[in-house]
Amino acid sequence: MKKILLTNDDGVRKPGLWALYDVLKNFGTVFVVAPESEKSAVGMSITLHKPLRIRKYRIHGRVAYACSGTPSDSVIVAVRKIMPEPPDIVVSGINEGNNVSLQAVYGSGTVAAAIRASLMGYPSVAFSLSFSEKGTFRPGWLKTAMKTAAYKAKPIVEYLLNHGLPKGVDYLNVNFPYEISDKTPYRLTVAAKSRYAELVEERVDPREKPYYWLKGKLLERLEPGTDAYAIFVEKAVSVTPMKTDTSATSSDAYEDLRQFLERL
Amino acid sequence: MKKILLTNDDGVRKPGLWALYDVLKNFGTVFVVAPESEKSAVGMSITLHKPLRIRKYRIHGRVAYACSGTPSDSVIVAVRKIMPEPPDIVVSGINEGNNVSLQAVYGSGTVAAAIRASLMGYPSVAFSLSFSEKGTFRPGWLKTAMKTAAYKAKPIVEYLLNHGLPKGVDYLNVNFPYEISDKTPYRLTVAAKSRYAELVEERVDPREKPYYWLKGKLLERLEPGTDAYAIFVEKAVSVTPMKTDTSATSSDAYEDLRQFLERL
Repeated sequence: MKKILLTNDDGVRKPGLWALYDVLKNFGTVFVVAPESEKSAVGMSITLHKPLRIRKYRIHGRVAYACSGTPSDSVIVAVRKIMPEPPDIVVSGINEGNNVSLQAVYGSGTVAAAIRASLMGYPSVAFSLSFSEKGTFRPGWLKTAMKTAAYKAKPIVEYLLNHGLPKGVDYLNVNFPYEISDKTPYRLTVAAKSRYAELVEERVDPREKPYYWLKGKLLERLEPGTDAYAIFVEKAVSVTPMKTDTSATSSDAYEDLRQFLERL
Repeated sequence: MKKILLTNDDGVRKPGLWALYDVLKNFGTVFVVAPESEKSAVGMSITLHKPLRIRKYRIHGRVAYACSGTPSDSVIVAVRKIMPEPPDIVVSGINEGNNVSLQAVYGSGTVAAAIRASLMGYPSVAFSLSFSEKGTFRPGWLKTAMKTAAYKAKPIVEYLLNHGLPKGVDYLNVNFPYEISDKTPYRLTVAAKSRYAELVEERVDPREKPYYWLKGKLLERLEPGTDAYAIFVEKAVSVTPMKTDTSATSSDAYEDLRQFLERL
């Protein structure tokens, strides 16, 4: 039996997590360990200065552990305290909202759980479902779309359990388009650098003091082959092989810098 | 005149920031824009759901802007609202505590500011000073050590302003050893994967309920050539050329996955 750790960044009760659960249970024993409440945009942070609590729930008739900390905390506690054996794979998601482009990858709690698992030595995959640009949807859409996304996630998890990650790949970052259906095709992609321009809007409060809203203006030109192009333009499932190592290792390029430092 | 943005992750009044300021002012106009208070371990997060405030202070006789948000917020607001022209370089630090290994790099606010700057198109560098393993130091040590670290940072910034970043490098992650002195040598390094094992300690509260502390056990064997080895074993300044792109681009390795997805 395969051991699967299922986590997310926005809470142990979210429909995206349970849609994945229903698919993953076919492959082995699934341990659900996720933050108690929404912890998106916490990145890779771990909780060092206060203790963590773990609460055991029964949700949809299944055992689930809610961790008071971040997605990274959840992965660490799951592996070290909850699971009797290490996981064969760590699955994170399905997140409500896409995680395409490096801008999103670096800040995402969903992806952070996958990176944390990878740094601890476990193969992992992050799944995210894009919302409409307005962030609104009709009643019932979320649950149905998450079920369809989980159905499309199934062969990817099966591939990872049977073949492992490709050589040189540390985790997969998978994004589903808003228009997800059973027939949505798959694209192997690279991460776009950005998907929006970071803008700042200045306003003045009733006391005539300025304040500022950050706003992301979606980039109009998306590059073919990227995760953003796949989900926004091709309306396809984007599968991005990712590395955790961010060292720039092509040492030829920085021989000059090396020599400079040696002369100091 | 060069335009330099100086930021950090632990507050606009920190001695590490002002030690760097005294060095950077020799190279051009320095804009200080940093979080109002300590924002370490927030990673790359940006503030979308509440407005930001910017307060203008005079600190050590110099103008400094304190941002109510994260290091990433500070970079965005600095570039879009405070600086009249884009920066030639973004400098983050000097952080109190090292940021060696991917474990640290992914969670660090200091490094996050450098990554954010790089994603926005500006060359950047993150500086961090290692504390003793116990995290304690004698009175006066911090200020003196930060001054020495800033002195050792100077040629690195000068190199970046004169030569730019080496090809294929998006930012530099620089760490100073606890034993920093004028004579400390420099090492060009790669990021270690981990510097500690993630462990969990279970305790029981007075009401007999369990709670958990995360604790990092420092790895005993550090690999030569890594940032961790440089600062802990060689007691050298570690200079790590970093990339922001975490796509796994060696497509040969995942041709099998591509074919698998195409067949679905």
